[in-house]
Amino acid sequence: MAFIAPAKKAVCLLSGGLDSSTCLALASRDGYACYALSFDYGQRHRIELEAAARIAAAIGVERHIVAKIGLDAFGGSALTDDIDVPKGREADEMSHGIPVTYVPARNTIFLSFALAWAEVLGSADIFIGVNALDYSGYPDCRPEFIEAYERMANLATKAGVEGHTKLKIHTPLLKLSKAEIVKLAHKLGLDFALTHSCYDPDAAGRPCGQCDSCLLRAKGFHEAGIEDR
Amino acid sequence: MAFIAPAKKAVCLLSGGLDSSTCLALASRDGYACYALSFDYGQRHRIELEAAARIAAAIGVERHIVAKIGLDAFGGSALTDDIDVPKGREADEMSHGIPVTYVPARNTIFLSFALAWAEVLGSADIFIGVNALDYSGYPDCRPEFIEAYERMANLATKAGVEGHTKLKIHTPLLKLSKAEIVKLAHKLGLDFALTHSCYDPDAAGRPCGQCDSCLLRAKGFHEAGIEDR
Repeated sequence: MAFIAPAKKAVCLLSGGLDSSTCLALASRDGYACYALSFDYGQRHRIELEAAARIAAAIGVERHIVAKIGLDAFGGSALTDDIDVPKGREADEMSHGIPVTYVPARNTIFLSFALAWAEVLGSADIFIGVNALDYSGYPDCRPEFIEAYERMANLATKAGVEGHTKLKIHTPLLKLSKAEIVKLAHKLGLDFALTHSCYDPDAAGRPCGQCDSCLLRAKGFHEAGIEDR
Repeated sequence: MAFIAPAKKAVCLLSGGLDSSTCLALASRDGYACYALSFDYGQRHRIELEAAARIAAAIGVERHIVAKIGLDAFGGSALTDDIDVPKGREADEMSHGIPVTYVPARNTIFLSFALAWAEVLGSADIFIGVNALDYSGYPDCRPEFIEAYERMANLATKAGVEGHTKLKIHTPLLKLSKAEIVKLAHKLGLDFALTHSCYDPDAAGRPCGQCDSCLLRAKGFHEAGIEDR
Protein backbone atom coordinates (compact mmCIF):
# COMPACT_ATOMS: atom_id res chain seq x y z
CA MET A 1 0.00 0.00 0.00
CA ALA A 2 1.53 3.30 -1.05
CA PHE A 3 1.94 6.02 1.55
CA ILE A 4 0.17 9.20 0.56
CA ALA A 5 1.30 12.34 2.39
CA PRO A 6 -1.62 14.43 3.66
CA ALA A 7 -2.17 17.63 1.70
CA LYS A 8 -0.72 20.82 3.16
CA LYS A 9 -3.43 23.01 4.64
CA ALA A 10 -3.97 26.55 3.37
CA VAL A 11 -6.24 29.28 4.69
CA CYS A 12 -7.74 31.15 1.69
CA LEU A 13 -9.44 34.51 2.05
CA LEU A 14 -12.60 34.41 -0.05
CA SER A 15 -14.84 37.41 -0.72
CA GLY A 16 -16.81 35.73 -3.49
CA GLY A 17 -15.38 38.11 -6.09
CA LEU A 18 -13.45 37.12 -9.19
CA ASP A 19 -9.99 37.67 -7.69
CA SER A 20 -10.34 35.78 -4.41
CA SER A 21 -12.20 32.96 -6.20
CA THR A 22 -9.39 32.63 -8.72
CA CYS A 23 -6.87 32.67 -5.88
CA LEU A 24 -8.73 29.85 -4.09
CA ALA A 25 -9.03 27.82 -7.32
CA LEU A 26 -5.26 28.18 -7.76
CA ALA A 27 -4.47 27.02 -4.19
CA SER A 28 -6.76 24.04 -4.74
CA ARG A 29 -5.17 23.22 -8.10
CA ASP A 30 -1.73 23.37 -6.43
CA GLY A 31 -2.79 20.57 -4.08
CA TYR A 32 -3.54 22.44 -0.87
CA ALA A 33 -6.35 21.32 1.41
CA CYS A 34 -8.20 24.65 1.43
CA TYR A 35 -9.91 26.32 4.39
CA ALA A 36 -11.92 29.24 3.00
CA LEU A 37 -12.51 32.29 5.19
CA SER A 38 -15.10 34.98 4.47
CA PHE A 39 -16.27 37.92 6.56
CA ASP A 40 -19.59 39.36 7.44
CA TYR A 41 -18.37 42.88 8.18
CA GLY A 42 -21.54 44.88 7.80
CA GLN A 43 -21.05 45.30 4.06
CA ARG A 44 -24.17 46.73 2.48
CA HIS A 45 -24.61 43.94 -0.03
CA ARG A 46 -24.96 40.42 1.35
CA ILE A 47 -24.96 38.82 -2.07
CA GLU A 48 -21.15 38.67 -1.78
CA LEU A 49 -21.39 36.11 1.04
CA GLU A 50 -23.79 33.96 -0.96
CA ALA A 51 -21.32 34.01 -3.84
CA ALA A 52 -18.51 33.00 -1.46
CA ALA A 53 -20.51 30.00 -0.23
CA ARG A 54 -21.26 28.88 -3.82
CA ILE A 55 -17.60 29.19 -4.84
CA ALA A 56 -16.34 27.34 -1.74
CA ALA A 57 -18.75 24.48 -2.48
CA ALA A 58 -17.92 24.39 -6.20
CA ILE A 59 -14.16 24.28 -5.59
CA GLY A 60 -14.55 21.75 -2.79
CA VAL A 61 -12.91 23.24 0.29
CA GLU A 62 -12.34 21.34 3.57
CA ARG A 63 -14.32 23.96 5.44
CA HIS A 64 -15.77 27.43 4.87
CA ILE A 65 -16.15 29.82 7.81
CA VAL A 66 -17.90 33.19 7.67
CA ALA A 67 -16.51 35.24 10.56
CA LYS A 68 -18.79 37.99 11.77
CA ILE A 69 -16.87 41.16 12.59
CA GLY A 70 -18.38 44.50 13.46
CA LEU A 71 -16.40 46.82 11.15
CA ASP A 72 -19.52 48.91 10.61
CA ALA A 73 -19.19 50.13 14.22
CA PHE A 74 -16.25 52.24 13.07
CA GLY A 75 -17.74 53.51 9.80
CA GLY A 76 -15.61 55.34 7.26
CA SER A 77 -16.27 53.50 3.98
CA ALA A 78 -18.82 53.53 1.14
CA LEU A 79 -19.02 49.74 1.52
CA THR A 80 -20.27 49.89 5.11
CA ASP A 81 -21.60 53.46 5.46
CA ASP A 82 -24.15 55.66 3.74
CA ILE A 83 -21.50 57.20 1.49
CA ASP A 84 -22.40 56.87 -2.24
CA VAL A 85 -20.48 54.37 -4.36
CA PRO A 86 -18.95 56.30 -7.32
CA LYS A 87 -20.30 55.38 -10.76
CA GLY A 88 -19.12 55.61 -14.36
CA ARG A 89 -15.53 56.60 -13.60
CA GLU A 90 -12.76 56.28 -16.20
CA ALA A 91 -9.75 54.05 -15.46
CA ASP A 92 -7.47 57.05 -14.76
CA GLU A 93 -9.93 58.44 -12.21
CA MET A 94 -10.03 55.08 -10.45
CA SER A 95 -6.26 54.82 -10.17
CA HIS A 96 -5.96 58.29 -8.66
CA GLY A 97 -5.89 58.33 -4.87
CA ILE A 98 -7.62 56.10 -2.34
CA PRO A 99 -11.24 55.30 -3.29
CA VAL A 100 -14.18 55.85 -0.90
CA THR A 101 -14.86 52.12 -1.16
CA TYR A 102 -11.68 51.55 0.86
CA VAL A 103 -12.54 49.90 4.19
CA PRO A 104 -10.04 51.01 6.88
CA ALA A 105 -7.48 48.33 7.71
CA ARG A 106 -9.61 45.69 6.01
CA ASN A 107 -6.86 43.43 4.72
CA THR A 108 -4.94 43.85 7.98
CA ILE A 109 -7.98 42.55 9.86
CA PHE A 110 -8.78 39.80 7.35
CA LEU A 111 -5.19 38.52 7.38
CA SER A 112 -5.19 38.56 11.21
CA PHE A 113 -8.17 36.22 11.31
CA ALA A 114 -6.55 34.04 8.67
CA LEU A 115 -3.44 33.96 10.86
CA ALA A 116 -5.46 32.85 13.89
CA TRP A 117 -7.12 30.06 11.93
CA ALA A 118 -3.82 29.01 10.33
CA GLU A 119 -2.26 28.74 13.77
CA VAL A 120 -5.09 26.55 15.07
CA LEU A 121 -4.99 24.35 11.94
CA GLY A 122 -1.19 24.10 11.98
CA SER A 123 -1.10 25.66 8.52
CA ALA A 124 1.80 27.81 7.30
CA ASP A 125 0.10 29.05 4.14
CA ILE A 126 -2.34 31.91 3.69
CA PHE A 127 -3.70 32.91 0.27
CA ILE A 128 -5.03 36.39 -0.50
CA GLY A 129 -6.16 37.60 -3.92
CA VAL A 130 -4.76 41.14 -3.88
CA ASN A 131 -3.60 42.42 -7.25
CA ALA A 132 -1.84 45.17 -9.12
CA LEU A 133 -4.99 47.03 -10.12
CA ASP A 134 -5.92 47.47 -6.48
CA TYR A 135 -2.62 48.54 -5.08
CA SER A 136 -2.61 51.86 -6.87
CA GLY A 137 -5.59 52.81 -4.72
CA TYR A 138 -5.69 50.60 -1.64
CA PRO A 139 -2.69 50.91 0.68
CA ASP A 140 -3.20 47.42 2.10
CA CYS A 141 -2.88 45.73 -1.31
CA ARG A 142 0.70 46.84 -1.98
CA PRO A 143 3.58 44.34 -2.03
CA GLU A 144 5.46 46.24 0.70
CA PHE A 145 2.43 45.90 2.96
CA ILE A 146 2.21 42.13 2.35
CA GLU A 147 5.94 41.71 3.08
CA ALA A 148 5.68 43.71 6.32
CA TYR A 149 2.60 41.70 7.29
CA GLU A 150 4.36 38.38 6.74
CA ARG A 151 7.33 39.52 8.81
CA MET A 152 5.03 40.63 11.66
CA ALA A 153 3.00 37.41 11.45
CA ASN A 154 6.10 35.30 11.92
CA LEU A 155 6.81 37.18 15.17
CA ALA A 156 3.19 36.93 16.35
CA THR A 157 2.73 33.20 16.48
CA LYS A 158 3.79 30.12 18.39
CA ALA A 159 5.22 28.62 15.22
CA GLY A 160 7.24 31.76 14.55
CA VAL A 161 8.62 31.87 18.09
CA GLU A 162 9.42 28.17 18.22
CA GLY A 163 10.97 28.55 14.79
CA HIS A 164 9.61 25.33 13.27
CA THR A 165 7.31 26.89 10.67
CA LYS A 166 7.75 29.93 8.49
CA LEU A 167 4.39 31.39 7.63
CA LYS A 168 3.96 32.47 4.02
CA ILE A 169 1.39 34.94 2.66
CA HIS A 170 0.73 33.85 -0.93
CA THR A 171 -0.35 36.57 -3.36
CA PRO A 172 -0.41 34.78 -6.72
CA LEU A 173 -2.45 37.54 -8.41
CA LEU A 174 -0.30 40.39 -7.15
CA LYS A 175 1.22 41.37 -10.48
CA LEU A 176 -1.56 40.27 -12.82
CA SER A 177 -3.82 42.61 -14.77
CA LYS A 178 -7.56 41.96 -14.63
CA ALA A 179 -7.38 40.43 -18.13
CA GLU A 180 -4.65 38.03 -16.98
CA ILE A 181 -6.77 37.06 -13.94
CA VAL A 182 -9.73 36.35 -16.23
CA LYS A 183 -7.55 34.15 -18.46
CA LEU A 184 -6.13 32.31 -15.43
CA ALA A 185 -9.61 31.75 -13.96
CA HIS A 186 -10.80 30.46 -17.34
CA LYS A 187 -7.87 28.01 -17.50
CA LEU A 188 -8.65 26.81 -13.96
CA GLY A 189 -12.25 26.14 -14.98
CA LEU A 190 -13.77 28.68 -12.59
CA ASP A 191 -17.49 29.16 -13.16
CA PHE A 192 -17.65 32.94 -13.56
CA ALA A 193 -21.40 33.00 -13.03
CA LEU A 194 -20.85 31.99 -9.39
CA THR A 195 -18.71 35.03 -8.60
CA HIS A 196 -19.88 38.50 -7.64
CA SER A 197 -17.91 41.74 -8.07
CA CYS A 198 -20.33 44.68 -7.94
CA TYR A 199 -20.09 47.26 -5.11
CA ASP A 200 -23.71 48.29 -5.54
CA PRO A 201 -26.00 45.49 -6.77
CA ASP A 202 -29.79 45.84 -6.96
CA ALA A 203 -32.15 44.04 -4.58
CA ALA A 204 -32.08 40.93 -6.76
CA GLY A 205 -28.27 40.86 -6.65
CA ARG A 206 -27.76 42.01 -10.24
CA PRO A 207 -24.56 44.06 -10.81
CA CYS A 208 -24.99 47.82 -11.44
CA GLY A 209 -22.53 47.79 -14.34
CA GLN A 210 -21.26 51.28 -13.45
CA CYS A 211 -19.19 51.05 -10.24
CA ASP A 212 -15.39 50.73 -10.40
CA SER A 213 -15.59 47.01 -9.72
CA CYS A 214 -18.11 46.34 -12.53
CA LEU A 215 -16.17 48.52 -14.97
CA LEU A 216 -12.83 46.85 -14.16
CA ARG A 217 -14.41 43.42 -14.50
CA ALA A 218 -15.97 44.26 -17.87
CA LYS A 219 -12.69 45.71 -19.13
CA GLY A 220 -10.81 42.60 -17.96
CA PHE A 221 -13.15 40.21 -19.77
CA HIS A 222 -13.10 42.38 -22.89
CA GLU A 223 -9.29 42.49 -22.99
CA ALA A 224 -9.05 38.76 -22.30
CA GLY A 225 -11.47 38.05 -25.15
CA ILE A 226 -13.57 35.86 -22.84
CA GLU A 227 -17.28 36.16 -22.21
CA ASP A 228 -18.49 36.90 -18.65
CA ARG A 229 -20.98 34.20 -17.56
CA MET B 1 -10.39 84.16 24.78
CA ALA B 2 -7.53 81.69 24.90
CA PHE B 3 -7.25 79.12 22.14
CA ILE B 4 -7.29 75.58 23.48
CA ALA B 5 -5.96 72.94 21.12
CA PRO B 6 -8.22 69.89 20.94
CA ALA B 7 -6.81 66.84 22.70
CA LYS B 8 -5.06 64.24 20.53
CA LYS B 9 -7.19 61.15 20.09
CA ALA B 10 -5.92 57.75 21.21
CA VAL B 11 -7.43 54.31 20.70
CA CYS B 12 -6.88 52.27 23.89
CA LEU B 13 -7.32 48.50 24.00
CA LEU B 14 -9.20 47.67 27.18
CA SER B 15 -9.82 44.14 28.46
CA GLY B 16 -10.95 45.25 31.90
CA GLY B 17 -7.90 43.70 33.54
CA LEU B 18 -5.36 45.50 35.68
CA ASP B 19 -2.82 46.08 32.91
CA SER B 20 -5.08 47.48 30.19
CA SER B 21 -6.93 49.62 32.76
CA THR B 22 -3.64 51.08 33.98
CA CYS B 23 -2.62 51.71 30.38
CA LEU B 24 -5.88 53.56 29.68
CA ALA B 25 -5.53 55.61 32.89
CA LEU B 26 -2.04 56.59 31.77
CA ALA B 27 -3.18 57.68 28.29
CA SER B 28 -5.93 59.74 29.91
CA ARG B 29 -3.52 61.28 32.43
CA ASP B 30 -1.22 62.21 29.52
CA GLY B 31 -4.02 64.29 28.00
CA TYR B 32 -5.28 62.04 25.22
CA ALA B 33 -8.97 61.96 24.33
CA CYS B 34 -9.39 58.21 24.81
CA TYR B 35 -11.45 55.83 22.64
CA ALA B 36 -11.62 52.51 24.49
CA LEU B 37 -11.94 49.30 22.50
CA SER B 38 -12.94 45.94 23.98
CA PHE B 39 -13.76 42.64 22.32
CA ASP B 40 -16.45 40.09 22.74
CA TYR B 41 -14.50 37.16 21.30
CA GLY B 42 -16.36 34.21 22.75
CA GLN B 43 -14.32 34.29 25.96
CA ARG B 44 -15.83 31.98 28.54
CA HIS B 45 -16.15 34.62 31.23
CA ARG B 46 -18.20 37.71 30.36
CA ILE B 47 -17.39 39.46 33.61
CA GLU B 48 -14.32 40.88 31.83
CA LEU B 49 -16.54 42.98 29.55
CA GLU B 50 -18.52 44.31 32.48
CA ALA B 51 -15.25 45.33 34.13
CA ALA B 52 -14.16 47.08 30.92
CA ALA B 53 -17.38 49.10 30.80
CA ARG B 54 -16.98 50.16 34.47
CA ILE B 55 -13.35 51.20 33.93
CA ALA B 56 -14.14 53.13 30.73
CA ALA B 57 -16.89 55.04 32.56
CA ALA B 58 -14.73 55.69 35.64
CA ILE B 59 -11.81 57.02 33.62
CA GLY B 60 -14.12 59.06 31.39
CA VAL B 61 -13.44 57.99 27.81
CA GLU B 62 -14.91 59.71 24.74
CA ARG B 63 -16.42 56.44 23.60
CA HIS B 64 -16.25 52.73 24.45
CA ILE B 65 -16.92 50.16 21.73
CA VAL B 66 -17.21 46.42 22.29
CA ALA B 67 -16.46 44.78 18.94
CA LYS B 68 -17.95 41.33 18.52
CA ILE B 69 -15.54 38.97 16.79
CA GLY B 70 -16.03 35.25 16.34
CA LEU B 71 -12.65 33.94 17.50
CA ASP B 72 -14.36 30.95 19.10
CA ALA B 73 -15.10 29.64 15.58
CA PHE B 74 -11.41 28.76 15.32
CA GLY B 75 -10.94 27.33 18.83
CA GLY B 76 -7.46 26.54 20.13
CA SER B 77 -7.36 28.25 23.55
CA ALA B 78 -8.39 27.58 27.14
CA LEU B 79 -10.02 31.03 27.15
CA THR B 80 -12.47 30.20 24.35
CA ASP B 81 -12.50 26.39 24.30
CA ASP B 82 -13.25 23.60 26.73
CA ILE B 83 -9.57 23.23 27.63
CA ASP B 84 -8.95 23.50 31.41
CA VAL B 85 -7.33 26.65 32.76
CA PRO B 86 -4.18 25.59 34.71
CA LYS B 87 -4.28 26.25 38.46
CA GLY B 88 -1.76 26.69 41.25
CA ARG B 89 1.34 26.96 39.06
CA GLU B 90 4.62 28.40 40.36
CA ALA B 91 6.10 31.47 38.65
CA ASP B 92 8.80 29.42 36.88
CA GLU B 93 6.19 27.07 35.43
CA MET B 94 4.23 30.04 34.09
CA SER B 95 7.23 31.57 32.38
CA HIS B 96 8.10 28.32 30.63
CA GLY B 97 6.65 28.01 27.13
CA ILE B 98 3.41 29.31 25.68
CA PRO B 99 0.42 28.85 28.03
CA VAL B 100 -2.84 27.14 26.98
CA THR B 101 -4.60 30.42 27.77
CA TYR B 102 -2.90 31.89 24.69
CA VAL B 103 -5.53 32.89 22.11
CA PRO B 104 -4.08 32.48 18.59
CA ALA B 105 -3.16 35.81 17.01
CA ARG B 106 -5.21 37.68 19.61
CA ASN B 107 -3.12 40.84 19.86
CA THR B 108 -2.65 40.87 16.09
CA ILE B 109 -6.42 40.90 15.68
CA PHE B 110 -7.05 43.39 18.50
CA LEU B 111 -4.45 45.81 17.14
CA SER B 112 -5.96 45.50 13.64
CA PHE B 113 -9.35 46.65 14.89
CA ALA B 114 -7.66 49.45 16.83
CA LEU B 115 -5.91 50.42 13.60
CA ALA B 116 -9.21 50.56 11.71
CA TRP B 117 -10.80 52.74 14.37
CA ALA B 118 -7.72 54.98 14.60
CA GLU B 119 -7.86 55.52 10.86
CA VAL B 120 -11.53 56.50 10.94
CA LEU B 121 -10.94 58.83 13.93
CA GLY B 122 -7.82 60.37 12.42
CA SER B 123 -5.84 59.17 15.42
CA ALA B 124 -2.15 58.25 15.22
CA ASP B 125 -1.90 56.74 18.69
CA ILE B 126 -2.82 53.25 19.86
CA PHE B 127 -2.26 52.11 23.46
CA ILE B 128 -1.91 48.44 24.43
CA GLY B 129 -1.08 47.19 27.93
CA VAL B 130 1.29 44.35 27.06
CA ASN B 131 4.06 43.79 29.60
CA ALA B 132 7.27 41.97 30.39
CA LEU B 133 5.60 39.21 32.41
CA ASP B 134 3.52 38.23 29.42
CA TYR B 135 6.13 38.27 26.76
CA SER B 136 7.99 35.32 28.16
CA GLY B 137 4.93 33.23 27.33
CA TYR B 138 2.85 35.00 24.69
CA PRO B 139 4.60 35.58 21.35
CA ASP B 140 2.41 38.57 20.53
CA CYS B 141 3.46 40.52 23.64
CA ARG B 142 7.15 40.75 22.75
CA PRO B 143 8.77 44.09 21.84
CA GLU B 144 9.93 42.78 18.45
CA PHE B 145 6.33 41.86 17.61
CA ILE B 146 5.10 45.35 18.54
CA GLU B 147 7.83 46.97 16.42
CA ALA B 148 7.00 44.78 13.41
CA TYR B 149 3.31 45.53 13.89
CA GLU B 150 3.89 49.28 13.94
CA ARG B 151 5.97 49.07 10.78
CA MET B 152 3.26 47.04 9.01
CA ALA B 153 0.52 49.37 10.24
CA ASN B 154 2.24 52.37 8.73
CA LEU B 155 2.21 50.62 5.35
CA ALA B 156 -1.42 49.52 5.72
CA THR B 157 -3.17 52.85 6.05
CA LYS B 158 -4.06 55.97 4.10
CA ALA B 159 -2.09 58.10 6.56
CA GLY B 160 0.95 55.90 6.15
CA VAL B 161 0.74 56.01 2.35
CA GLU B 162 0.13 59.72 2.18
CA GLY B 163 2.93 60.19 4.68
CA HIS B 164 1.27 62.81 6.87
CA THR B 165 0.87 60.77 10.02
CA LYS B 166 3.16 58.24 11.62
CA LEU B 167 1.14 55.76 13.63
CA LYS B 168 2.60 54.86 17.01
CA ILE B 169 1.81 51.77 19.10
CA HIS B 170 2.30 52.84 22.72
CA THR B 171 3.28 50.10 25.20
CA PRO B 172 3.96 52.01 28.42
CA LEU B 173 3.83 48.85 30.57
CA LEU B 174 6.15 46.82 28.36
CA LYS B 175 9.09 46.68 30.72
CA LEU B 176 7.29 46.92 34.05
CA SER B 177 6.93 44.11 36.55
CA LYS B 178 3.47 43.41 37.97
CA ALA B 179 4.50 45.18 41.22
CA GLU B 180 5.53 48.26 39.23
CA ILE B 181 2.21 48.22 37.38
CA VAL B 182 0.34 48.03 40.71
CA LYS B 183 2.32 51.01 42.04
CA LEU B 184 1.69 53.00 38.85
CA ALA B 185 -2.04 52.24 38.91
CA HIS B 186 -2.16 53.27 42.57
CA LYS B 187 -0.45 56.57 41.73
CA LEU B 188 -2.93 57.17 38.89
CA GLY B 189 -5.82 56.65 41.29
CA LEU B 190 -7.19 53.57 39.54
CA ASP B 191 -9.97 51.88 41.48
CA PHE B 192 -8.63 48.30 41.66
CA ALA B 193 -12.03 46.93 42.65
CA LEU B 194 -13.35 47.79 39.17
CA THR B 195 -10.79 45.63 37.38
CA HIS B 196 -10.97 41.91 36.69
CA SER B 197 -8.00 39.60 36.08
CA CYS B 198 -9.11 36.00 36.70
CA TYR B 199 -9.14 33.47 33.82
CA ASP B 200 -11.71 31.28 35.56
CA PRO B 201 -14.10 33.22 37.81
CA ASP B 202 -17.13 31.59 39.45
CA ALA B 203 -20.70 32.28 38.35
CA ALA B 204 -20.85 35.39 40.56
CA GLY B 205 -17.69 36.74 38.93
CA ARG B 206 -15.43 36.11 41.92
CA PRO B 207 -11.78 35.34 41.02
CA CYS B 208 -10.60 31.72 41.50
CA GLY B 209 -7.36 32.81 43.17
CA GLN B 210 -5.44 29.91 41.61
CA CYS B 211 -5.03 30.60 37.87
CA ASP B 212 -1.84 32.22 36.53
CA SER B 213 -3.55 35.59 36.26
CA CYS B 214 -4.82 35.55 39.87
CA LEU B 215 -1.46 34.36 41.20
CA LEU B 216 0.49 37.01 39.26
CA ARG B 217 -1.90 39.71 40.44
CA ALA B 218 -1.59 38.63 44.09
CA LYS B 219 2.18 38.50 43.82
CA GLY B 220 2.26 41.97 42.25
CA PHE B 221 0.17 43.53 45.01
CA HIS B 222 2.20 41.72 47.68
CA GLU B 223 5.51 42.95 46.26
CA ALA B 224 4.16 46.48 45.81
CA GLY B 225 2.99 46.51 49.42
CA ILE B 226 -0.47 47.67 48.31
CA GLU B 227 -3.78 46.08 49.17
CA ASP B 228 -5.96 44.71 46.35
CA ARG B 229 -9.44 46.30 46.50
